[in-house]
Amino acid sequence: MGSEFDLIDRLFGASRCAPPGGWPPGSLPGGDDAALISAPAPGFQLVWALDTMVEHRHFWSEANPRAVGEKLLAVNLSDLAAMGARPLGCLLSLAVPDWSEATSMAWLDSFAEGLRRATVQHACPLYGGDTVRLPAGSPRVLSITVLGECPAGQALRRDGAHPGDEVWVSGSLGDAAWAVARGEPHERLDRPQPRLALGQALRAEGLAHAAIDLSDGLAGDLAHILRASAAVRGPMVAELSVPALWQAAGESLRESLRESLPASIRGQPTAEALRLLASGGDDYELCFTAAADAHPRLLALAERLALPLTCVGHLRTAAPGEPPIVWRLADGQTMPEHEQPQGGFDHG
Amino acid sequence: MGSEFDLIDRLFGASRCAPPGGWPPGSLPGGDDAALISAPAPGFQLVWALDTMVEHRHFWSEANPRAVGEKLLAVNLSDLAAMGARPLGCLLSLAVPDWSEATSMAWLDSFAEGLRRATVQHACPLYGGDTVRLPAGSPRVLSITVLGECPAGQALRRDGAHPGDEVWVSGSLGDAAWAVARGEPHERLDRPQPRLALGQALRAEGLAHAAIDLSDGLAGDLAHILRASAAVRGPMVAELSVPALWQAAGESLRESLRESLPASIRGQPTAEALRLLASGGDDYELCFTAAADAHPRLLALAERLALPLTCVGHLRTAAPGEPPIVWRLADGQTMPEHEQPQGGFDHG
Repeated sequence: MGSEFDLIDRLFGASRCAPPGGWPPGSLPGGDDAALISAPAPGFQLVWALDTMVEHRHFWSEANPRAVGEKLLAVNLSDLAAMGARPLGCLLSLAVPDWSEATSMAWLDSFAEGLRRATVQHACPLYGGDTVRLPAGSPRVLSITVLGECPAGQALRRDGAHPGDEVWVSGSLGDAAWAVARGEPHERLDRPQPRLALGQALRAEGLAHAAIDLSDGLAGDLAHILRASAAVRGPMVAELSVPALWQAAGESLRESLRESLPASIRGQPTAEALRLLASGGDDYELCFTAAADAHPRLLALAERLALPLTCVGHLRTAAPGEPPIVWRLADGQTMPEHEQPQGGFDHG
Repeated sequence: MGSEFDLIDRLFGASRCAPPGGWPPGSLPGGDDAALISAPAPGFQLVWALDTMVEHRHFWSEANPRAVGEKLLAVNLSDLAAMGARPLGCLLSLAVPDWSEATSMAWLDSFAEGLRRATVQHACPLYGGDTVRLPAGSPRVLSITVLGECPAGQALRRDGAHPGDEVWVSGSLGDAAWAVARGEPHERLDRPQPRLALGQALRAEGLAHAAIDLSDGLAGDLAHILRASAAVRGPMVAELSVPALWQAAGESLRESLRESLPASIRGQPTAEALRLLASGGDDYELCFTAAADAHPRLLALAERLALPLTCVGHLRTAAPGEPPIVWRLADGQTMPEHEQPQGGFDHG
C-alpha cells in the first residue's frame, strides 16, 4: 500500500470489477488515462449524473462500509431511473484520509466490496476513477458519476407535467427520515433501491409526463416538477391527499404511530409523521405525473413490477398567489399552514 | 445563499454555462436529475475520465481560484488529449466548507469564472454536477469528470509501444516541479494546457503507437507505457538521452541552471534539475512513442501546431533484469544509479 496506484489496482482493478459477462468489446476499463466505452446504438442519447456523499453528512462513520459503497452507486442510479435511462457504467472519485492504516484499509476493502456488488446488481460496471488522500481527520468524500442511455428525445424530464395529471409515488416513503430522526440504522436508509425498472417502463410505455427521484422529500422534489413545468404550461398547484399519501408511508413510520395513536385517528398521520413522510428525504423512490386515463395501466405496471404505486393527488392550474402544494385532509379541508410539510431537506 | 440549489444555479446554471453557440439540440444541461447529451455519431466511441484535486495537496489555498477552476478542467482534458479524444462535456463535484461566508463566496465566484472560461476555451461545456458542504476547516475537494469521443478502435493507448519506437515529449518539462520546489506560483504550474490538438492529430494521422499524459513525471509515466506494452510485445527498455531531454527543459528550470553553472557543463543538467525534469510531475504534456520513420512528419506537425516536439530516446527489447529506463549521458555512458530520476511522483 502507500501508493495510490496499488490501492486503485487492488480495490478497483479491471479484473476485480469486470461485469459477469466480461467487459464489452472495444471497452478499456481502468489502467489508461481515460476509460473507453462503446457509444449507445444510433437513435439513443446519453444520460449523465453525478452524486457526492460526505461522511457525517450523508452517512455515519459507524455505517457499514459495504452499505455505503452500495448506497453511493444507488443514489446515482436513482437519478438515471428518474429519467428512464439504462446504466452503461460508472467512475469513482475516492477522497479518504489515512488509507495506509489497517482500520482504514478494512473500511476501504469493505466499501469496495459493496460498490462492486452494486455494480453487478444494477449492471453498471466501474470503469475507473481517481483516488486521493485527505489530511488525517478529514471526512471521507465519495463521488460517483454514472452514464446511461435512453432513446433520444424520450427521457423522462421534470418539465413535462400537465394540469389535470395525477401525482404518483413508488414504493414507500418516510422510513429513511424516520431512521435519521432516531439516529438508527434502517434498511431503507442504508440500502436504497434505485427504481430503474420502473423508470424504464414508464419511459418505454409512455406512461409518465414528468418524473423526479425523491432524494430531498416529496414536498421539495414535487415543487421542482411544478417549477420546471410552469415554464412550459403555466403555474400549477399539486392537490395532495394526506390520507392517500399516508397509504404510501413506510412500515416503520406507520408502526410507530400505530403504537401511540388512538384507533380513531389512524387514517391520518400526525404533523410530525407527515413531515417525515413528505419532507424527510432519502427515500430514493420516484415521483411522477401521468394523465388520469393512464391510472389502470399504472396499477397493472405496479402489479407486474411487484412495486406499489400510489396515486397521491393531482395537478391543476394555479390561481395567482397560490402555494405550490395544497394538502387536503380526509374531510376535504386544507391542512393548517403551520402543520404543512416544508419544501425540501437541504442535502448540501 | 445558504441553499445548495441557489449556489448551483447561481454559479453553474445552464444559462451561465451555455457554450458560445448555445446548447446542442436535444441536450438538457443542469436542472434535472441527470444531464442529457447527444451520443457520438456512429463509428465513434466514448472516452471518459475523472480527476480530483484537493486543497493543500494539489493546489495551495492562496492560489488564484480562477486558475484553480481552469486547472481542474485542464488536468481532466489532458487525459482525453492523451487518448486523442475530442471533449463533449463535463460534470463538477464541488465539496467545500462554509460557503455562506463572504470570503468563501468570493472564492467560489472566482473559481466558477475560471472553470466557465476553460469550458469555453476547450469547447467542453459544463452540464451540471453536485455541490456539498464540508465541515468548517476541511480542505476543498474538487472533482471533474469529462466525456469525450473518438473514432472507435482508434484511441491512443498505453499498450501500443513497439521495440524500435522513438520516444517523444511535447512542449517543455520541469517548470511546474521547479515552481513547486520553490513554493512559488508559475504559469506552467497554475495554468497547464491540455494538448488536445496534438493528441487528436497524432490519432487522426496514425503517427503514435502509444501515448500518456505527463501528470506524475516522465520517468513514472513512461514506465506505465512500458509496463502496459510489455504485455503485448514483451519487456522493453527506454534508452533516454539526457542531453536530448534537457532540450525539452522549461525556461525557468533552464534559466536557474544558467545562472549557477559554468558554461562548460551547460549542455547537461545537474542531478537535481534532471529530477525536476523527469520525475517532478504536473507537466501535463504528452509523452508518446512512434515509429522512427514518422520522425519527419512529427517535426512537421510540431511546426503546424506551433508546439515543440522533442525526440528524447528510443525503445528496445529488454535483456533480463534490466531497469525500465536507461539514462544516457552526452558521452554515451549510463548515468550513475544514485543520480537517476526516480519513477514517478505520488499524486494521491
